[in-house]
Formats: sequence, structure tokens, C-alpha cells
Amino acid sequence: MKEIGRLARAASHRLALLASTDKDAALSAMRMRLEGGREAILAINARDCAEAELAGQSAALIDRLRITSLRFDEMTGALTAIRELDDPVGTIVVERRRPNGLVIQRRRVPIGVIAVIYESRPNVTVDAAALCLKSGNAVILRGGSESFETNRAIHRCLASGLADSGLTADAVQLVPTTDRDAVAMLLGGLDGAIDLVIPRGGADLIARVKRDARVPVLGHMQGNCHVYIDAAADPAMATAIAVNSKLRRTGICGAAETLLIDVAAEEGLARGVVCALLDGGCEVRGDAQVQLLDSRVRPASDADWTTEFLAPIIAAARVSGVTGAIEHVARHGSGHTESIVTEDLDAAERFLAEVDSAIVLHNASTQFADGGEFGMGAEIGISTDRLHARGPVGVEELTTYKYVVRGSGQTRR
Amino acid sequence: MKEIGRLARAASHRLALLASTDKDAALSAMRMRLEGGREAILAINARDCAEAELAGQSAALIDRLRITSLRFDEMTGALTAIRELDDPVGTIVVERRRPNGLVIQRRRVPIGVIAVIYESRPNVTVDAAALCLKSGNAVILRGGSESFETNRAIHRCLASGLADSGLTADAVQLVPTTDRDAVAMLLGGLDGAIDLVIPRGGADLIARVKRDARVPVLGHMQGNCHVYIDAAADPAMATAIAVNSKLRRTGICGAAETLLIDVAAEEGLARGVVCALLDGGCEVRGDAQVQLLDSRVRPASDADWTTEFLAPIIAAARVSGVTGAIEHVARHGSGHTESIVTEDLDAAERFLAEVDSAIVLHNASTQFADGGEFGMGAEIGISTDRLHARGPVGVEELTTYKYVVRGSGQTRR
Repeated sequence: MKEIGRLARAASHRLALLASTDKDAALSAMRMRLEGGREAILAINARDCAEAELAGQSAALIDRLRITSLRFDEMTGALTAIRELDDPVGTIVVERRRPNGLVIQRRRVPIGVIAVIYESRPNVTVDAAALCLKSGNAVILRGGSESFETNRAIHRCLASGLADSGLTADAVQLVPTTDRDAVAMLLGGLDGAIDLVIPRGGADLIARVKRDARVPVLGHMQGNCHVYIDAAADPAMATAIAVNSKLRRTGICGAAETLLIDVAAEEGLARGVVCALLDGGCEVRGDAQVQLLDSRVRPASDADWTTEFLAPIIAAARVSGVTGAIEHVARHGSGHTESIVTEDLDAAERFLAEVDSAIVLHNASTQFADGGEFGMGAEIGISTDRLHARGPVGVEELTTYKYVVRGSGQTRR
Repeated sequence: MKEIGRLARAASHRLALLASTDKDAALSAMRMRLEGGREAILAINARDCAEAELAGQSAALIDRLRITSLRFDEMTGALTAIRELDDPVGTIVVERRRPNGLVIQRRRVPIGVIAVIYESRPNVTVDAAALCLKSGNAVILRGGSESFETNRAIHRCLASGLADSGLTADAVQLVPTTDRDAVAMLLGGLDGAIDLVIPRGGADLIARVKRDARVPVLGHMQGNCHVYIDAAADPAMATAIAVNSKLRRTGICGAAETLLIDVAAEEGLARGVVCALLDGGCEVRGDAQVQLLDSRVRPASDADWTTEFLAPIIAAARVSGVTGAIEHVARHGSGHTESIVTEDLDAAERFLAEVDSAIVLHNASTQFADGGEFGMGAEIGISTDRLHARGPVGVEELTTYKYVVRGSGQTRR
């Protein structure tokens, strides 16, 4: 493991200085090799899936593990999409000329070496490799044990692509063991060889990484997202946004998990939203007042207010206007994404200012919480941490900066 | 301690929404109260100093602890200087209109609650309080035990100023005990009440904070800064920059600690720089080749290449051009500040690109590593961490951001 860290550090120094065209050529070569490995990867993945079934893994895990033909196309497509992004490295973010003649530039540079620890989705192997390469970082990948052979097969193609284009394969390394000690060593930082750990997976994985890491971590804990329907909401818009936020896809972190309805909202508005969710196949777990709206509403437990269901289930409460909504989110939210639906601009601005989440929206679905939808291209995740990066983490968020100062002999008085 | 955390968190919510004028009025009131407390603070500080002397503390510690009349003026002046900075909170950093009509803003917001753990310099009490207030953060201050009564006296004035202007004194709290367990509790995050810990002090303090903190830390380890004199340097400029980088003030983190001289530099250039340092009262600890330049040069030990002397002592080595300089800095540097002196622009650009430090300079003194000199106003320190903030940490670096998205009923396909 220490050798992996040493090689990654050495590679990171070379990656930091690469021209955009060289990185883009490597991403193209990686795509070619991945396309070439299609049949082999699908066959190996089928075996991983069969073994996971034999081992009695859950259907949800096996679904995440499985690479369908469509998902394979998405993986190769991601390489193209990331290649086409602007290179963030070298950008001058700020430039100041000081009275003494010094010219001070703040210039984007890569973070260095990033370890990505993830679970069963093998597409993360491709996404993380490509996003780190584009942003000039070396990456050490550690996937889940059930997808180990699939990840190895994908990684072999990516490494061949790097070699084809004359880059070192040390830029993208896969931990060659399923040994759990390897994770502990990554979290220990490999003697200073790792600058950042990014966990991708369930709440247990992320909690463990946050607890044990001796190096900085960028991760999202969970997305307990809220939709608040204000009394002044347009009824049709409120229904459309609530249903889309919850049901478009229930398994993503930007899916709504709690519906808040203003106590002052007319009964037609409140009932319309709740019934649309119920009619759409969603279980609604409501407080006493929400239960009055429809007999299908079940009672909510205390735990429901903080649960990330990732399923067609939503908790629902009546709250005292925008103040009540802000308080409810502050008490139960996870700082991910919250939306207010209202035609009252003052209420909207208060909600946008006072809700302390990575993403706050007015009259739009929480499912827009996504790097692609934000115009950032692909993302490696959505950060609910407060430092370095908040919200979608794309190639720009995978960089840091340095100050470059040019003088003509200045000394300080 | 948990109560301190709870009060700070509550205060942070109110601070985040304050208008700039309210914060500025509070800073003015704090200055008035501090001025009013001048005699009392100086008397209490004299007692702290006398007790430190009795306890056998070092002269250096007592010097840092002592508030002279001049230093008192600097403390009150800092309040004015920080008041006059632009308020970073609320600034729209990026705004994008998406094809679907969503308008996405990235807006600066405070980090939240910051704990500042510092040693004997009582002016940090004022600087940290003012920088955090200006940037909308609540702060919990924990000073050194030897300056406890001085810090309490200063803090009473700051709290009175906050009260005068109608703000909660919970915005700036001082840990009311010298108990070391209090530090451990701060580093544990007080049940999620602390978003960031900033240590200010010696290497031991910062190493302890980094090791034990369960919340993010922004700190600089040490400033082992290098000046590299290229063969193509202007001799007079090389001498001026080396002497200024080392000797202007030897106790600051931007002071040079190692001098690197190109092996290809003419003997006159190399000897001129070394003799100017020696003549200026600096001890030079050189490798074999530097020892040949002047009989006063002492031999350097291996440890000298990584030592932050903070004294009129410099390590000195001959290196193989800019490549050798980059390698030496990569092996021994601390990632703080490094300067190249040369008339060769290609060599300069290579050094600026390849030296991986927070600040890299061409033809300028390392002592410019300072927030004020960078046009950022006051700073709380210089970060050698790579994430969130690198280099000088001013009010802007004490903020994070959130995404504010405005729609008109958009749902995601």
C-alpha cells in the first residue's frame, strides 16, 4: 500500500503539469480501450453478479452492481463528457497589482492525490478516474469487494488507455486487494501520500470514513431533502414539484424525503399535493394534521423526520409558515437540498437566505441537485460538508489554488 | 462547554443574516470599549507577565505575552482595519442561467462556528473576534493559560461593545477556564456545534490539534521558506532579497530558513549573498560547497534543512539549477512560501509552476507572505493545508458558499 501511495505522489507531480490536450488524449484513449473491453467486462460483471446472488446479497446491491448494456454506454459516454469539460487547472482566479508593483495571481492547481472509496457501483471506477485525471490529480481507487473483478477489468482498460497515450498508469491505481486493512491504511493517509479521501456509498461507509480518516474527507452524509409548500403556492406547481421531487427517482440523494405544508395553506392545496403523491404510489407518513387530509396517510414516527428513505415513502408535516419550515429544516435536515414553492417573493427570499443547506431552491424540484443540471458537467458527489466544496463536486471543486507572485526585486519594509 | 457550543450555534444563525452596517457598528463599539479598557488591560497584562516571570517562563514567551502601548494601539487599529474591509458575506461568486430557465447563484455565506485555539499573544483575542464577526461567524476563543487574565479583560471589552450595539455577546465567547480538558472538548466538536478549528501558535500546538481534532482544521504547520538564487540572478537584487527574506523579521512564518544557490552561479554572486547575510548578523550553516565561500560558514546538519529557525540562522546549499532547487524544496519544504531570484524568465516560470507551495514568488522577498501585503486586509494565519484555503486566510477565506436556485415551476425530466 505504501508503494501505491509513493507512486501516486510521483504521478501527481507529473499530472499537475500536463497540458489539457494530453489529458484529453488520454481520456479518448481510455474510452477506446474501454469500448474494446466491452464483452470481457460484461462477462466478468455477470460472474460478479452471480456470485453476489449466491452469497445472498440484496437485490438492491445486485442491481447497483450490474452493468447493463445501457449502463456500459453511460460509462463510455462519461469519458467523452468529462473530456469535453474545460480544464480547470492553470486558470487565474484573481489577479491583483499591488502599489509596490507586485503582481499577485491566484492560480488553480490540482489537489494532488485523491483516494476514492466506494461501494458496489462499478461506474464510479470510470467517473472517478476521469474526473481526477481531468483535474490533474492522481487517484487511488478502492471499490467494494463484491465488484472487485468488475473493477479490475475496467481498470485494466483505463490503464491501457493511459499507457497508449504515453501517460503513467500510476495516475489511476486500483487497490489490488479486497482486504479491509487496505481501507484503514488509505484513511491513515499512507505517510502523507494522500491529500483527500472521497467516500461514495451508503451512510455507514461515509460515517466510518469520517470517523477514522486522518486526512481531509469530502463526503455527503445523507440527503434528507425537504419541499415546503407555502400558503401562497400555486396549487398546480406545488403538486408538480412535490411529485417530481419525491418520485422522479427515489434512490438519489436529491430526492425529497419530507414534505412540509404551511398550516395556512387552503385545504384544497394541501390535499391536492398529498393525494397526488398517494396516487403516484407514494406512502405518506403524516403528522396528525396531515392524516386528516386523506385516510391513506399513515402516522409518522419521530424517526421519519430524519430518515433518508430512498424509496417511495415521504414524511409530511404541517408547519407555521416559512418560519416553521425554516425551523423544521434546521432541526431535522441534513444540509443537502431544500425547496420552497410559493408565489410570495418575500417568503421565498427568507427561505433562501435562512435555510442553511448546500442547495436552496425556489419553485423548482429538489431533483435538480446534480452537477450536470448545474452546468458543471459530471460530478463525483454532492458535498454536505461546509469547507472547501459544498453541493456538487465537479472538476473545479477537485482543485485548490496557489499564489503566484511576480516582482522586480521588491523587498519588504 | 456544551452550553458554549449551543450558544455559539444559535448566535451563528443570527450573525449570518446581519447587515454589513450592523457588523461594522459592532466593530466600532468594540474598539471604543477596548480603548476605554486600556489602563485596566495594561495593568492586568503586567500582572500576567510578572506571574509568567515568576513561573520561570522563557523570555520569548513573556515578550509575546506583553502588551506594550504600541501593541495596544495595534490591537485597536486592527478593529478599524477589519471594519473597513469589504463584507464577504452575500457576494454572488458565480451566476448561471440554465437552458431550462433556472438561475443558479453561488453565494458566499459564513462557515458557522469557528474555534480559535491560540497561545500567548493576546492580540489574537482581538484579531480572531473581529475577523470572525466581519465574516459572520460565531467564534469560541481559547487562549493560553499564561495570558488567561489578559484575554479575559480584553474579552470583557469586546463583549461590552457587542452589547452596546445590540448584538449578542454569544457571538464572541472566551472559554472561561484554563482546564486542558476544554481543548479536548473543542477538538471533539461539542456535539456538532463547531464547524472549524483554527490553531495559532507553535508547531507542538498545531500538531496536537491536527492529531486530535474530530472536526476540520485550518492551520499552518511551519514556514520552512526557501530563497533560490539562480545563476542568472542580478547580484544586487539577489543580495537584497536574501537579506530581507531572512533578516527583516526572523520570527515570522514567512522568514526564509534555507538559501539555495545555483552551482552554476559565479563565485562573486554566491559569495556576495552569503557574506551579506553573515555581515548582517546571520549565522549561515552551509553544505561543503557553501563552506568554501567564507570561513564564517558553519557546517549544516541534516536537521537544518527542515528546521524553522525563527532566528538569525539560515541553512545554505548549492543546487543544480532550477531543477535542483525544485527537488530540494519538494524534499525538505513545508509548502509555505518560496522565492526564485533570476533574470531568466523561463527558469522563473518553471519554478513558479513546479514548486508546490501556497505562495511562490519571482524576484521578491518571502516576507511578503502576508494577508495585508496581498491586499486581503488582516489575516488569521497562513494556511499550508491544501483544502478550502491556501496561503493567507482573511475574511473571504472564513466563508463558504451555498447555491441559491430560482425557478418558475421547473421539474426534472
